[in-house]
Amino acid sequence: MTDSNPKQTIRILTTGGTIEKSYCEEDGTLRNRASIIRDGLIASLRLPYTHLELDSVLNKDSLEMDDGDRQQIADAVARTAEKGDPIVILHGTDTMSNSADFCFETLGTPPVAVVFTGAMKPMGFIDSDARQNVTEALLAARLLPPGFYIAFHNRVFAIPGARKNRETGTFEAIPAGE
Amino acid sequence: MTDSNPKQTIRILTTGGTIEKSYCEEDGTLRNRASIIRDGLIASLRLPYTHLELDSVLNKDSLEMDDGDRQQIADAVARTAEKGDPIVILHGTDTMSNSADFCFETLGTPPVAVVFTGAMKPMGFIDSDARQNVTEALLAARLLPPGFYIAFHNRVFAIPGARKNRETGTFEAIPAGE
Amino acid sequence: MTDSNPKQTIRILTTGGTIEKSYCEEDGTLRNRASIIRDGLIASLRLPYTHLELDSVLNKDSLEMDDGDRQQIADAVARTAEKGDPIVILHGTDTMSNSADFCFETLGTPPVAVVFTGAMKPMGFIDSDARQNVTEALLAARLLPPGFYIAFHNRVFAIPGARKNRETGTFEAIPAGE
Amino acid sequence: MTDSNPKQTIRILTTGGTIEKSYCEEDGTLRNRASIIRDGLIASLRLPYTHLELDSVLNKDSLEMDDGDRQQIADAVARTAEKGDPIVILHGTDTMSNSADFCFETLGTPPVAVVFTGAMKPMGFIDSDARQNVTEALLAARLLPPGFYIAFHNRVFAIPGARKNRETGTFEAIPAGE
Repeated sequence: MTDSNPKQTIRILTTGGTIEKSYCEEDGTLRNRASIIRDGLIASLRLPYTHLELDSVLNKDSLEMDDGDRQQIADAVARTAEKGDPIVILHGTDTMSNSADFCFETLGTPPVAVVFTGAMKPMGFIDSDARQNVTEALLAARLLPPGFYIAFHNRVFAIPGARKNRETGTFEAIPAGE
Repeated sequence: MTDSNPKQTIRILTTGGTIEKSYCEEDGTLRNRASIIRDGLIASLRLPYTHLELDSVLNKDSLEMDDGDRQQIADAVARTAEKGDPIVILHGTDTMSNSADFCFETLGTPPVAVVFTGAMKPMGFIDSDARQNVTEALLAARLLPPGFYIAFHNRVFAIPGARKNRETGTFEAIPAGE
Repeated sequence: MTDSNPKQTIRILTTGGTIEKSYCEEDGTLRNRASIIRDGLIASLRLPYTHLELDSVLNKDSLEMDDGDRQQIADAVARTAEKGDPIVILHGTDTMSNSADFCFETLGTPPVAVVFTGAMKPMGFIDSDARQNVTEALLAARLLPPGFYIAFHNRVFAIPGARKNRETGTFEAIPAGE
Repeated sequence: MTDSNPKQTIRILTTGGTIEKSYCEEDGTLRNRASIIRDGLIASLRLPYTHLELDSVLNKDSLEMDDGDRQQIADAVARTAEKGDPIVILHGTDTMSNSADFCFETLGTPPVAVVFTGAMKPMGFIDSDARQNVTEALLAARLLPPGFYIAFHNRVFAIPGARKNRETGTFEAIPAGE
């Protein structure tokens, strides 16, 4: 007999970026701290039929990532995807589409849905978009077929095909021919 | 030439329920007030490529709904679906699956995705699940093929096939044979 | 040698009222629950040099209190004031000034500052005034000389002399001659 | 006949500091922006019998202030105090006590209560102490006799006599003889 209400495992890989930044009261700076994802963000969502596994791959501002870093992300995706569960990757928005494109070029279509997301404003802020974007990425990871995606601000983009629009502070589809 | 980044219209039908309840300071009660959806909930989400249309169908605690009320909801769905945009229905959780089943039995498969959602805790509370559930319903409405669904707590249920579990305070799939 | 930075003990007596109401997801009602004060409100304030002692005297909507209840509050004040620390009393707003007047008439001027406060909106709401009012009452309890007071919405009222204004949803001073 | 419930004017002088920092989504930095005080902080408090006047004196991280800046603050205090209303000064915590001491040395006891406050965490953060400290400063400004003070974390310090404790992230009284 089948369990009609099994828990779905989703594997979250963290790489740094705005979404993980937290405020350091000693020196007044914003620093990346992966623990904020578990204690702040995940704890605030209701996930009765979801089991989350968090793994920290990198802890970098995405503007500082190079291809060596992207190879580490691709390696982590390949290794994690073998377990058969959908994957959510938390990543800085500035080069998120570069890393997603790199993973696609390196790995081709993965065996599970791999959804990148992040935030324009760190999750500790009252008006952060982190909780919205992670909520969307977790649902997209459950619903979508294997492939690379970006989920952001109520849209899902297939990869390749998306880029950040710095003026509007969101992602957009790349028009044909560009 | 195609616009690669058009705005997607999503039509929200409100019917009352916990999600719309707001606190009345004069008499200390919780009352349904549809305006809280627009001013509180929608305003807190980032939806740069989404256009929302709100329409109030009913304003009832879902425990008090009868088949006449459900017929009104089904009529509103039929009328709204003609416009071709996905639909999100905000509904009390206690009889949400009854209304969704009623719509399916009355209308069959609709021409667009119709996603029911609601909340266990009114949206004015700090730890309400309203924002999470609406975020999920809006994304599911964009991603899913035509049909009736319930989106709740990081799960999407095809209708018929779901029911509320009062003990755990969430929805669950109905096992085969029940 | 004196400790220049001793902890100040403030004793909080809870009696019920809007400020303590919390939402019950099972039946959709608001119920009084004293524990919400410690876990929600007090935990959100920074009080490095303050030691709080909480004691529950009553758990009632203040519209339902009678003189027997008020005598219990006065007895608790008399007993607690003997310890020599300032007191904050959390109370429903509807009859807060009645209970404060009753305490003054029964006990006269107490040996410590006794500050009543409460909230128009339960503390679990995003826009509750509970945190503001408790912050004010805790500071007033430290600063003011022995006596009964109400602290509310950036004002402190000496007792007797204050009443609730139901139209404006706040307290006000009673003009001379009324 | 006297109005028993007049509005009390409190004059707020802003000088920059952590409390005013807001997040810039374009470059991911925290910047001082005085408008956040009016739109974010003040709007979230209930002040039915208080009239606030905001005036921006400086917009600096308090670690970068020199005696020329402090003279500007003292000049603004002297000018503003002539109007007869209590004053709240929002200031970075790192050198707040230096500026308060400077004002006292320059101006002596002022004709009104002048209360400095600030925050360890910018007010846009969910767990910021800005709202608590400003609530306390506004009440202290109403209750205290003319003089310079710091209000912070449920304590009021007379000036001179206070200093920041960097280890504990709060203010403390300076013991006699130090």
